[in-house]
Amino acid sequence: MGVSIIGTGSYIPENQIKNKAFAKQEFLNSDGSSFQQTNNIIIEKFKGITGIEERRYVSEDLNTSDIAFLASERAILDSGIDKEDLDYIIFAHNFGDVSAGESQGDTLPSLASRVKHLLKIRNPNCVAYDMLFGCPGWIEGVIQANAFIKSGIAKRCLVIGAETLSRIVDPYDRDSMIYADGAGAVVLEASDANTGIMSHISASYTLKEAHYLFYGKSYNSSGNETKYIKMLGRKIYEFAVTHVPNAMVECLRKSGFDVAQVRKILIHQANEKMDEAIVSRFYGHFNMEVPEHIMPMTIDKLGNSSVATIPTLLDQILKGKVKNHHLHTGDVIIFASVGAGMNINAIVYKF
Amino acid sequence: MGVSIIGTGSYIPENQIKNKAFAKQEFLNSDGSSFQQTNNIIIEKFKGITGIEERRYVSEDLNTSDIAFLASERAILDSGIDKEDLDYIIFAHNFGDVSAGESQGDTLPSLASRVKHLLKIRNPNCVAYDMLFGCPGWIEGVIQANAFIKSGIAKRCLVIGAETLSRIVDPYDRDSMIYADGAGAVVLEASDANTGIMSHISASYTLKEAHYLFYGKSYNSSGNETKYIKMLGRKIYEFAVTHVPNAMVECLRKSGFDVAQVRKILIHQANEKMDEAIVSRFYGHFNMEVPEHIMPMTIDKLGNSSVATIPTLLDQILKGKVKNHHLHTGDVIIFASVGAGMNINAIVYKF
Repeated sequence: MGVSIIGTGSYIPENQIKNKAFAKQEFLNSDGSSFQQTNNIIIEKFKGITGIEERRYVSEDLNTSDIAFLASERAILDSGIDKEDLDYIIFAHNFGDVSAGESQGDTLPSLASRVKHLLKIRNPNCVAYDMLFGCPGWIEGVIQANAFIKSGIAKRCLVIGAETLSRIVDPYDRDSMIYADGAGAVVLEASDANTGIMSHISASYTLKEAHYLFYGKSYNSSGNETKYIKMLGRKIYEFAVTHVPNAMVECLRKSGFDVAQVRKILIHQANEKMDEAIVSRFYGHFNMEVPEHIMPMTIDKLGNSSVATIPTLLDQILKGKVKNHHLHTGDVIIFASVGAGMNINAIVYKF
Repeated sequence: MGVSIIGTGSYIPENQIKNKAFAKQEFLNSDGSSFQQTNNIIIEKFKGITGIEERRYVSEDLNTSDIAFLASERAILDSGIDKEDLDYIIFAHNFGDVSAGESQGDTLPSLASRVKHLLKIRNPNCVAYDMLFGCPGWIEGVIQANAFIKSGIAKRCLVIGAETLSRIVDPYDRDSMIYADGAGAVVLEASDANTGIMSHISASYTLKEAHYLFYGKSYNSSGNETKYIKMLGRKIYEFAVTHVPNAMVECLRKSGFDVAQVRKILIHQANEKMDEAIVSRFYGHFNMEVPEHIMPMTIDKLGNSSVATIPTLLDQILKGKVKNHHLHTGDVIIFASVGAGMNINAIVYKF
């Protein structure tokens, strides 16, 4: 038995926040001290490394579960199935619904329950739960759906990745320019054994790495006890370029496919230079140059929307919205992600 | 293949909070108005319905992930396995780490990552993730572990339920007296087909029920924007006594066992009267009286610790700490839970 994606959907928030929107922001070092550079130089350097020119933020009236619902509705429509035939709604996020102007995340009820409610699904046997696994959460949700379908407890699963990181960023931290909002969803179903998920791999590195991404106070901490997303960028970079290529190599080996058969690599986008280094090391393992048009990137316009990045990218490609990137029946691709935990995962998938 | 529990552990917080601790608390109605009754009458009525005499709260220095680590360490020791042989750490909770005096839940990194870090597990192939499914989260984690083991992607899983509800209760809401802190964990492993998880059932009722449990403002809302756990008690009661017995009947039917073979029912404890009504309706379905000593209860001393209630109860029974309740090889039991989502699940399990 195979397990295949039969529908995709995404929601790209309407508010385009260009880099120049941060031109007058006061950025501070982690110790609260000022930078010697001007914001223009900080922003140019930031763009040079991450590739980010703009990112999307949701409007004030929307929460993570709302945009997840919009992406899910599109994925279900795209799949052609009856929504009542879903056995699982697996919602990968990391912070719950954080309303505009608030700092508390709301996970009561679970965001999966909220989406199921908004979808007006009546069938109680459609089990809705949330899953927290850092940025690799959406891929992990797909791996879980694969296990449920293969073990016979499900036939069809909706797997969502959605986040509104704009609600939990410290405005005094230049790393905040990385983060974005978004939602992506797919419907998975049993298929014949020659298509769909061919292999997968997951790992959690926690001994030294658990707190490379963490919740911490503002760099302008005067009287503000609110916590924001924080990262040890250098450590994450070194970790990712070491471990992600290895995971991809191992996943490809498990799939039985040859590296020459890989048509695309859809990788979590947090930093363009980092992704280029990962893909370069992956092909370096096979003594190969990186093929042209192997890695579709949307980070320049969409930033890092965490769990939403890969399902949004997949949906955009399948809908013909990513220049020079198309997918055809029989194409073999690799999904790969890295993020808080520190977690890594990969899937080799055949269309 | 069967999937069996090979080790259990729990952590019961040290601070005993007796009902009289609430004697001088100002309780308000949901509209902010005062009660006509004295606190003594409110507390007596509360005790009469819920059965709760006292509950446990963690000390200020501990968070959910800390007590989960303590329960997990005990479960692993009890199982006799090498911690490096775990393939999954599945952590069911609903609010993250909420430090004393704070309102923000912290889920970065996931609590499963924190526990794995504290356990000093080196093996990166031990995948650690968090799962949010209301109070039924721990049972759902066991169902997920069962799927992973049966689908061949795991051999051994640690499933944790832990919560510190004392950190998210509204002191002006008399329902707050229900909630408690705690942590329970089990290790699951493949076994022969005649023991372990014999059947399971899960359901999410979201069409009308999604917001029966929700995050809402304090009943004394003057200037306080913090959200607390809130519930529509009457609706939950009616929902639970209708749907939980049906789920148990269906789960037992799927297992193939006769109702006369059931030795114990381990049910989520939020309200003693509700649990008695559920079990009474379950046996009523078979035109039977409720057998003596069928339902071990610890709610009188431990309150409702959400996801921690059932694994803690199981651990306490297996360690001989619950009077009149013992489990022996060959015993058939039912686990059942209901909570936010609104989610319901059940497992028929043979020792």
